[in-house]
Amino acid sequence: MYKLIEVKSGVCAAEGFFADGVSAGLKKNSAKDIAFIYSDTLCELASVFTTNKMCAAPIKHFKQKGDFQTNFVLINSKNANAMTGKAGIEDIEDVLATLDEKIINPIMSSTGVIGVRLPKEKIIEGTKLFDLNAQEPHAAAEAIMTTDSFSKEKAFRIELEDGSSFHIGAMAKGAGMINPAMATMLCFVTTDAAVSKSEMQEILDELTVTTFNAASVDGDTSTNDTVILLSNAKSGSYNKEAFKEALYEIMLFLAKEMVRDGEGATKLVTYDITGAKDDLEAEIVAKALSNSLLVKTALYGEDPNWGRIASTVGASGVEAQEETLRISFEDLCVYDRGELYFNAEMEQKAAAVMQKESFTISCDLGVGSGSFKAYGCDLGYEYVKINADYRT
Amino acid sequence: MYKLIEVKSGVCAAEGFFADGVSAGLKKNSAKDIAFIYSDTLCELASVFTTNKMCAAPIKHFKQKGDFQTNFVLINSKNANAMTGKAGIEDIEDVLATLDEKIINPIMSSTGVIGVRLPKEKIIEGTKLFDLNAQEPHAAAEAIMTTDSFSKEKAFRIELEDGSSFHIGAMAKGAGMINPAMATMLCFVTTDAAVSKSEMQEILDELTVTTFNAASVDGDTSTNDTVILLSNAKSGSYNKEAFKEALYEIMLFLAKEMVRDGEGATKLVTYDITGAKDDLEAEIVAKALSNSLLVKTALYGEDPNWGRIASTVGASGVEAQEETLRISFEDLCVYDRGELYFNAEMEQKAAAVMQKESFTISCDLGVGSGSFKAYGCDLGYEYVKINADYRT
Repeated sequence: MYKLIEVKSGVCAAEGFFADGVSAGLKKNSAKDIAFIYSDTLCELASVFTTNKMCAAPIKHFKQKGDFQTNFVLINSKNANAMTGKAGIEDIEDVLATLDEKIINPIMSSTGVIGVRLPKEKIIEGTKLFDLNAQEPHAAAEAIMTTDSFSKEKAFRIELEDGSSFHIGAMAKGAGMINPAMATMLCFVTTDAAVSKSEMQEILDELTVTTFNAASVDGDTSTNDTVILLSNAKSGSYNKEAFKEALYEIMLFLAKEMVRDGEGATKLVTYDITGAKDDLEAEIVAKALSNSLLVKTALYGEDPNWGRIASTVGASGVEAQEETLRISFEDLCVYDRGELYFNAEMEQKAAAVMQKESFTISCDLGVGSGSFKAYGCDLGYEYVKINADYRT
Repeated sequence: MYKLIEVKSGVCAAEGFFADGVSAGLKKNSAKDIAFIYSDTLCELASVFTTNKMCAAPIKHFKQKGDFQTNFVLINSKNANAMTGKAGIEDIEDVLATLDEKIINPIMSSTGVIGVRLPKEKIIEGTKLFDLNAQEPHAAAEAIMTTDSFSKEKAFRIELEDGSSFHIGAMAKGAGMINPAMATMLCFVTTDAAVSKSEMQEILDELTVTTFNAASVDGDTSTNDTVILLSNAKSGSYNKEAFKEALYEIMLFLAKEMVRDGEGATKLVTYDITGAKDDLEAEIVAKALSNSLLVKTALYGEDPNWGRIASTVGASGVEAQEETLRISFEDLCVYDRGELYFNAEMEQKAAAVMQKESFTISCDLGVGSGSFKAYGCDLGYEYVKINADYRT
């Protein structure tokens, strides 16, 4: 028995964690663009990174360090420090070398434009504005945003039956390049739970599959995708089941928020696939639907074009056939195992479902018991506008 | 030694072939919407169909017939006759049963909206307007269009050294749902070459890989993709090399025309991949680029954002690394094996390349000798407009 109680203090919810965001002049109009997370004692780390072969310099820098503890993460937006070769890694070392002496084994994380050297002088100047005693999680969450239209945070206090408690808090950024093999997303999670490094990594890996890796905005996997979980164990309290549930709630919430805030997105759609040959085939179908341009534009047009859904299921390569497929918009079944009974009245009802900001499209393939849920959005004019000239 | 001479008579270029398109009232404003191809002697057939598991009724009907010869193909636009179950196949049989008695083993091909029963009474009435002596290839090519903005035809007379000659002619429709595992495309090729059925099928399969299957508009594979090649052997003439070259030219031209006419497309881009581990990995990269939303929107914005190209190469899962990758826009190398030398002057030059209607983006992965070329287009507001409400 345990209780999850939502708190509003983001990455500062856990004891001993500090954070803030300031302007280093990377964004226009003195908007916040660099952030830090600091713990007053050393932390164990768990992490998940992009599978992109062109992974960015901060990820290479992190991996080169091998096994280590740290008390500091520096994050910048506007520049991804990707495709920058050895110089990109040296830039990180130069920046981190200038930090306060209380800072041990610092790491860096970046998001923004690819193929441009890090503006390290600006960042170094910016870090001089950091106050390691600040607890401004919302400012930090704001500083890591790129094309995000709102910041993304979630935190819980977890109360156990023995009267002890611990915290998990997180911030994330998403927006474009969100994709099933991880989003262009950065996510930082802090906890004071007394969790072991190995268990923390195991849980993070497992939960990534059904949360961040189930979220898609445009099917592009970025060079910089990063999830870092820091634990300073300060609470002395821990319960695996409770930790896992709270972390799942946080990661799922942030994943959905990223999709909801997908570039130009107006709708958050859950693709609930059941009856597939196995879970993997269900995942393939769910992600094919969440990435299909024809499905995404039909969502934008609020057009209950179930034929495109059927076609995408059929094109995904998994075991499927029109005689066993069922397609529903929320509770409304629009195609039932070969029965073509979609009429004007149903079309009206289905269109009404599609006018909602958030809804579920279900496909029962009727060939097995595999299931998976993926999260996607629509694609409209705004996506084109944002991406046709992102760099200017 | 042989000569390919382009002729303008489309699917009527080959001796003994007749074709026309008329209005059956499926499209608005009496636009042509049904077409036929007729040969005054029986034809051998070769064919390639969609890999979509929800393949449409005409494809099931064709496959059920087993091995056969025919002299007639009926094609309609506006309705795909897909997801229509047994009723969809019965509708085809009902329509074909009403045709002229000179017609033997007729087949049907459809394109349009999925999940709506074929308006068979209208089509039957429409076929009564057919004149089997008509040679109106352009009218036929027009009738099979859906969201195409222009009709697509190509034909050659092939003159051999011995003084004999034969013809190959084709028409196609494309526009949306064009994709590497075949487009939403219909393509009909007629020939009077004395080619054997088995050789015709072998050549068609081989050429499909580097032509229609290398063309992408939106990464969606339709329920109706069809290529049918009809030979009546009337010329008595044949040369494999010449036949193959002419057919390749025709298929590549039509594939590129389909991409150029992709919904809302303003640019035709060739992705020329070299230096991959093998040809398959080159193909994976080429198709990943031609399908990437971020690349496609950058093309639309004429933004030489080579970082998105590098990121897409890295995300495609093939062997690649930033230290061996080279990226060029036409002859202009913008990223060279770890050297970051893209500057304002180069950006201007690269942007000038992107203003062209048609250009090549080359990626040398530098890890092997595999190569592949794929053909893609940009994605702009017009694509969203067309697809957000295709059915109305």
